[in-house]
Parts: sequence; C-alpha cells; structure tokens
Amino acid sequence: MSLTHFDAEGRAAMVDVGDKAETARQAIARGRITMAPATLERIREGQIGKGDVLAVARLAGIMAAKRTSDLIPLCHPLMLSKVTVDLTPAPPDAVEIEALVRLVGRTGVEMEALTAVTVAALTVYDMCKAIDRGMRIEAVRLSHKSGGKSGTYEAE
Amino acid sequence: MSLTHFDAEGRAAMVDVGDKAETARQAIARGRITMAPATLERIREGQIGKGDVLAVARLAGIMAAKRTSDLIPLCHPLMLSKVTVDLTPAPPDAVEIEALVRLVGRTGVEMEALTAVTVAALTVYDMCKAIDRGMRIEAVRLSHKSGGKSGTYEAE
Amino acid sequence: MSLTHFDAEGRAAMVDVGDKAETARQAIARGRITMAPATLERIREGQIGKGDVLAVARLAGIMAAKRTSDLIPLCHPLMLSKVTVDLTPAPPDAVEIEALVRLVGRTGVEMEALTAVTVAALTVYDMCKAIDRGMRIEAVRLSHKSGGKSGTYEAE
Amino acid sequence: MSLTHFDAEGRAAMVDVGDKAETARQAIARGRITMAPATLERIREGQIGKGDVLAVARLAGIMAAKRTSDLIPLCHPLMLSKVTVDLTPAPPDAVEIEALVRLVGRTGVEMEALTAVTVAALTVYDMCKAIDRGMRIEAVRLSHKSGGKSGTYEAE
Amino acid sequence: MSLTHFDAEGRAAMVDVGDKAETARQAIARGRITMAPATLERIREGQIGKGDVLAVARLAGIMAAKRTSDLIPLCHPLMLSKVTVDLTPAPPDAVEIEALVRLVGRTGVEMEALTAVTVAALTVYDMCKAIDRGMRIEAVRLSHKSGGKSGTYEAE
Amino acid sequence: MSLTHFDAEGRAAMVDVGDKAETARQAIARGRITMAPATLERIREGQIGKGDVLAVARLAGIMAAKRTSDLIPLCHPLMLSKVTVDLTPAPPDAVEIEALVRLVGRTGVEMEALTAVTVAALTVYDMCKAIDRGMRIEAVRLSHKSGGKSGTYEAE
Repeated sequence: MSLTHFDAEGRAAMVDVGDKAETARQAIARGRITMAPATLERIREGQIGKGDVLAVARLAGIMAAKRTSDLIPLCHPLMLSKVTVDLTPAPPDAVEIEALVRLVGRTGVEMEALTAVTVAALTVYDMCKAIDRGMRIEAVRLSHKSGGKSGTYEAE
Repeated sequence: MSLTHFDAEGRAAMVDVGDKAETARQAIARGRITMAPATLERIREGQIGKGDVLAVARLAGIMAAKRTSDLIPLCHPLMLSKVTVDLTPAPPDAVEIEALVRLVGRTGVEMEALTAVTVAALTVYDMCKAIDRGMRIEAVRLSHKSGGKSGTYEAE
Repeated sequence: MSLTHFDAEGRAAMVDVGDKAETARQAIARGRITMAPATLERIREGQIGKGDVLAVARLAGIMAAKRTSDLIPLCHPLMLSKVTVDLTPAPPDAVEIEALVRLVGRTGVEMEALTAVTVAALTVYDMCKAIDRGMRIEAVRLSHKSGGKSGTYEAE
Repeated sequence: MSLTHFDAEGRAAMVDVGDKAETARQAIARGRITMAPATLERIREGQIGKGDVLAVARLAGIMAAKRTSDLIPLCHPLMLSKVTVDLTPAPPDAVEIEALVRLVGRTGVEMEALTAVTVAALTVYDMCKAIDRGMRIEAVRLSHKSGGKSGTYEAE
Repeated sequence: MSLTHFDAEGRAAMVDVGDKAETARQAIARGRITMAPATLERIREGQIGKGDVLAVARLAGIMAAKRTSDLIPLCHPLMLSKVTVDLTPAPPDAVEIEALVRLVGRTGVEMEALTAVTVAALTVYDMCKAIDRGMRIEAVRLSHKSGGKSGTYEAE
Repeated sequence: MSLTHFDAEGRAAMVDVGDKAETARQAIARGRITMAPATLERIREGQIGKGDVLAVARLAGIMAAKRTSDLIPLCHPLMLSKVTVDLTPAPPDAVEIEALVRLVGRTGVEMEALTAVTVAALTVYDMCKAIDRGMRIEAVRLSHKSGGKSGTYEAE
C-alpha cells in the first residue's frame, strides 16, 4: 500500500475523491493536556465561578475544525455537518479532550477531529501559560472512524 | 497570580501588551509523533527517494505559525521575523519535531512555536494515515523561551 | 424550544445538519447606515463621477458572505450558489443595504446575508470616516427566508 | 476635505500611513441587538446556568477584530495590542455591546472596534435565531477615539 | 453575450449556479516563469541535492487553489475533489507550470487552476529573488476545461 | 550567493529578518493580461457605463497584497502602510497592471506587489471568462524596489 498523497514521481498531490460516494462519515479524536495540579485547580474554579478556560478552548477547537483544509496542505475543503468538542478535567493534573466531527461527503473527517483536539489543547496552554509553562499535549490520536469504503475503525 | 486572559468579572479578553517594550524574543517548542516502525520506514524511504513527508510537514508548520492568531482566540497578531521547523526520524517508531520562532515585539512567541509543532505533526498524520491510523502526537511542550520581562525559561 | 447551539450540559456546539435534506434555500437581510447629509452628497457624487464608495462596499459584502463560517463560531461552512448586495442612497442622510444569498444545501443562509449587510455597512463607514465619524449602522435584520423545514419567513 | 480612500482619478486605494508617527491609539465602539423579551430571558438564564450566549459572542467579537483587514478592503493590517468586548443585558429586550481596541501604531483602530461589535451582535443572532428571527442590530457607532494627529473624539 | 458577473444595472454580483447540475468538472491551466540560466541551474541542483524550490512551489500552488474564493471576489466557494501542480525545468531559462483541478459540482474550476499556477510561480520568485530579481511570470492561460453545460475547451 | 530560504541541510525556512533595520521600503510590480479586442471593448464600455471590471480587479489586487504571507509559504507577515493597484486598458488587446506597495519594516515588499498584480489579473480573467477563455497573463515582473540594505533596483 502506498502513501496516497504522492504521485508516481513522488510529488505531493491532493488525492482524487471525486469518484467516492457521498456517505455519512464520522470521526472521533482524543487527546490530553497535562499540567501542574494547581493549574487544574484554577481551571476548575473558573468553571464554577469566573473565567471559563474550557469554554474558550471548546470554541477554538470547533472553529479550527472548520479551518483544517487551510492548515493541512493536502486536506480537501469539506462542508462539515457537525462539530463538538468536549474538555473534561481529569484530576489531579490533566484535561481530557474529545472532538467529534460529522460529514455527508466524499472523504473522511479524521483530520478535522484531530485538528479540533490539538487547537483546543493549544488554547488551554495559551490561557494558562502565565501560571504554568510546563504543560504538555499528550496522546492525540484517532479514536473512532466510520463511513466510507475503508469501514469502521475503533482504537480503544 | 491570575489567569491573565480574564478580566475581574471573568470575561475573556486579549491582554494589553501596549506598554511592554519591543524586545527580541525567541521560543522553541518540541513534540513527537509515534507510529508503526513500518510507517517510519516508508517516511525515510521517501526522504531519500520519492515523496518527502517531512518536507511537506515542515512547510505546513511554518505556515501555521503565521496563522496562530487566527486559531488561538486570545493570541495577538504578530510580525514574526523567523520561523524554522525541523522533523527528525527517531527510529524505530517516531519523528521528533522542533520549531523555533523569533520576533522583535511586545509579546512572546511560544504559542507560535507550539502551533508550528502541532500542525507539522498533524500533517505527518494526514500523509501517512492511509497506512497507519494508530499514530499519536505526544509530548508537545515549550522547550525554551527568552526575551521579555519574564526572562529565560529552559524546560530541559 | 431550546437554544440549538448548546448541548444538554450547556456546552456550545455546531448543530448536526447531516440529516437535513439538500433543498434550495434563500435569505434576504436588510440594514441601513445613517450619516450627515453632506456625507451622502459626497457618496452620490462619487457614483456619478469618481470614487464609488458603494461599489467597494458591495464587493466587501459579497466577499464577507463567503467568510461567514470563519467569523461566526458555530456557523457551518457552506457552498453559496449566489450572493448579491445592493446599496441604495436614501436621501437625505442614509444608505439602505440589502443582501440576498442562495444555497442548495442543508442549512439556512440568513447569517451569510446578515454578515454581508454588516460588512458592507462597515466598509461605507471606513471609506467616509475621514469626513464623518458620527455615522451609525441601524436596523440590520432578516427580511425574508425560504427553503428548509421551517418554511418561509417574511419580516415586512 | 476629500474621501481619503480614493486617488485623484477616483480609484480606490489603501492610503499611505508610512509617514504617520507610531503612537498609542484607542477606539471604543458601541451597538445593541434588540430581541423579544423572552429571548433575553433565555440568554440570561444561560449566563447563570447552561449555555452562555454572551461568552461565545464576546470571543467571536475579539477574534473578528483581528480579522478586520481581511474583511474591510482598504483597512491596514495592524498588530492590535489589546481587544475587549463586553455584552450586557439591557432588559427588557436588548443586549448592549461595547468593544475597546488598543494599538501602538500608525493608524486608528475604529474599524477594528466597530467590526468587533457587529460580529458579536451577529453571533448573538446566530445562537438565538431558532427562537427569535426578529432580532435587530441597532446603533452601531464609534463612541470614543484617541491617539494620532486627529486628536480625541467623544460621541457621547 | 454579456459579462455574467454584473446585473442589469452594472452592479457586481456572484452569479447564481444553484440551477446548474452537479457534474464532474476539470480544468488544466499552464504558465511559465523565466529566469537567468544560472538561476535555473541552482533550482535543478536543489532538486537533486538540497533545498527543493519546486516542491515548495507545488505545495503553495495546491494550497492556493483551495483559497481561490477568498482571493477572487466573485468566485464561488467550492469543494475541490483533486488538485495537482507540476513544475518542470525547461532549460535553459524557464520552469513550466501546470495545474489540474477536479470537482463534482455546479460551476467550473478554471479559476482554481489558474490561481494554483500563479501562486506556484510567485513562490518560485520568492525563493530565488535573492539571486535573480529579473524573473518573469509568462503565458498563464487555461489549457483545458471539461464538464458543465458549456462543454469541452482545448486551448492547445 | 545562496538561496536564502534554505538552511545548510536544504530545509526550507523563513529567514531571520530580526536584525534588519526598520526602513521605508517600496516595490512596484507590473504585468499584463491579453485578450480578444472585443473583450477589451466590453471592459472599456463598462468603465464608462455599467459594470466596472477594472474597479473590481483593483480591489481584489489590494486585498490580495494583504494576504501575501498566507499564500507564499516563506513570506513574512507585514504591516503594509500603502497599497495601490492600477489597471489601464492598452488597446487593442491588453490591460496593463501596476501595483505599488510601501512598508516601514524589516523586509522588502516585492512579493506583495507581485501578488497584487497577479490576483488583479486573475480577477479580470474571472469576470470576462464567459466571453473569452483565451486571455493570458503575461510579463509579470518586478519593476522597482527601494529601501533596505540591498539598495534600489530598477528593471526598466
């Protein structure tokens, strides 16, 4: 099996999806941002009281999913039909992130889901970096994929 | 110390950097994408022969650094003076990614460096996903930061 | 009836339109920018002679309709099939703006029409602000909407 | 006094600000979105409980300020140093919006502040349109401007 | 036959393609960038050894095709199904560029192909301008177009 | 002299301009779009009467200059201080295009001027393609450059 984004001479190209059927497709990606326990404490206070880091990150992730084909050189522009991003505190020292993307179209949406997760994580970093520069984005991966010829994929 | 991206009522805001001095600033971020050994093998063949995954990912990372303020809601637009992204095979099963960003300006560039690393990693995923859906982005973190009032930070 | 852009936990999300039928949809939005009579005089001179403010604003409105999903966080990306924007002097002190947007797709285009009207109005402001800082954008509203399950809406 | 965005032949152009001094500049714009009282009630419930429409609109306004030169054809690209957007319920039937933008630079930031207000208002419309299509954006205007050669402007 | 992008009053508009059928469409555009023979020599060395100018230009062209509706005011946003860009050294003093774009949709993709060719050429200019400011972009034209009501067009 | 956009290993990079002085810089680029004489006739009628192709193309060129760093992978983001684009009918069968760009900054603006010329030309193509598919973009080149360490360049 070959790397589909290169032609026979090894030149990068956007692959042809014009012959694929328009089907309902879905992808779920997950990841995590780790941090000092005190940082997570601050984020959780904000959720109850003032300054909701996770709500800002959720929006950033949703908006980024729509920009995926601008960012990833060989991704097709797609008319996503649904995007959700969830960020869940995972005490003592992490926030778990999950993005779900749906499309009725000719190609999969795993890159959109992965982009949503990473931009949500970057946004958490941005908003907390004044108090914690040691945060790390970890374990960003495809969790589920369905629709299309290649069938269903379940990572976990 | 408080989360600087919220005001006293907990409303998200872009912080005022207008009073900060224009100084030379630099940030280095690092991360890794893990994969099956056979996938890394394919990437390395491409570097020698046809289809250079890492060259495409490098460009995507550089271009993404310039888009950071479009993606991260409370980031300032910045006139970056230098961006480099390096992707290095780390056998048997990973590619290490490092981004360096420089600016003469009023705020730090760590988000630009982190964005470059993650988009470079996402691009590797996109180009290899037809042969390996189990790749994972790991350990994306700030490695070095200098310039500005808060001084130099070294993670490692 | 609930606010459709939030899930059961109150988290913002792009709603799922994948199950909606692809139908012909249309929206018309209207608005107005008020100004000093002398400012309107200058704009009208430009239409006859040199420097057509309204032509620039019309183009800006059309281009903005295409950017709606970049600007409005929970809007779906759409492949608009038609956009027109009309700006009409309404002496002595206003310009009336109307935008019409059409789509064959799964969701309505009222946000695209409203975005076109507001950006056209902002462009008039920008081009005349050196002579009139007191201009105001007023009465931006949905005027007509048809297509889709919710049927036809007529404001006026 | 002439419309500065046209040259002597009436051709649109981005005016030269290269000779202007870099000074601290600030602009405040205001506007309002009117709605049915029941719609405002729903928004206010969300602020206390679930689904914060005003928080989403605030972020959309901030991000739009950064995109102003993409939207308004003859606006200069600017490195904004601060952006805040506030949305305040004004019972029984409106939300008041105010945006403040700061820059150390060569040209004013009134368009950025006006763009933030209108996109925040459009976002409120988008999130509430399923329950109220009759909302209207009203009274979008420049409220305050300082810095630069033309001095301070106060509308109210 | 009339210029389709203007209405009866001469006002610019995005034409209505909603009634057109969704068919498979394809366009090929070509162009050339001329340069000093020594510059071409440098580019060709890079292809074999280090620093591949043509690979960077190819990616820039592909990404630009996806941005066409952002750049060309009256172009429709489209979900391209395939984009390829090829740059071929044409000794002694030129690089030939060809772009192919495919779509299943309601309007042609010639602008996307032409945009890909010109941005690829501009990227070659950017990367070589330190050694050759006299490069010129020449003969950018539509070479082939098929699909849609107007039938097949062959320039050469 | 080496290709400055590659490092010693031949990897593409955005070059460091942080040590360059902020000086007044200017670039002028030129190009031409050729067409059937009847097409030029139609464009010239529009300038007098209805439907001004050249005015639309001028705006598209100005807006594109501001997007240059989004399009050309290794271009620096810049705060342009002035952009003008002029399109002049050159009977019997061409339109001449000239773009002037100014900046007070650390790097040249020739790419911004060349981008403005090509996007203006592409826009003319788009608006006239229904009546003339044989138009060609020709002779896009740098005409003048001043400011910065490398001194003044005059092509003609």
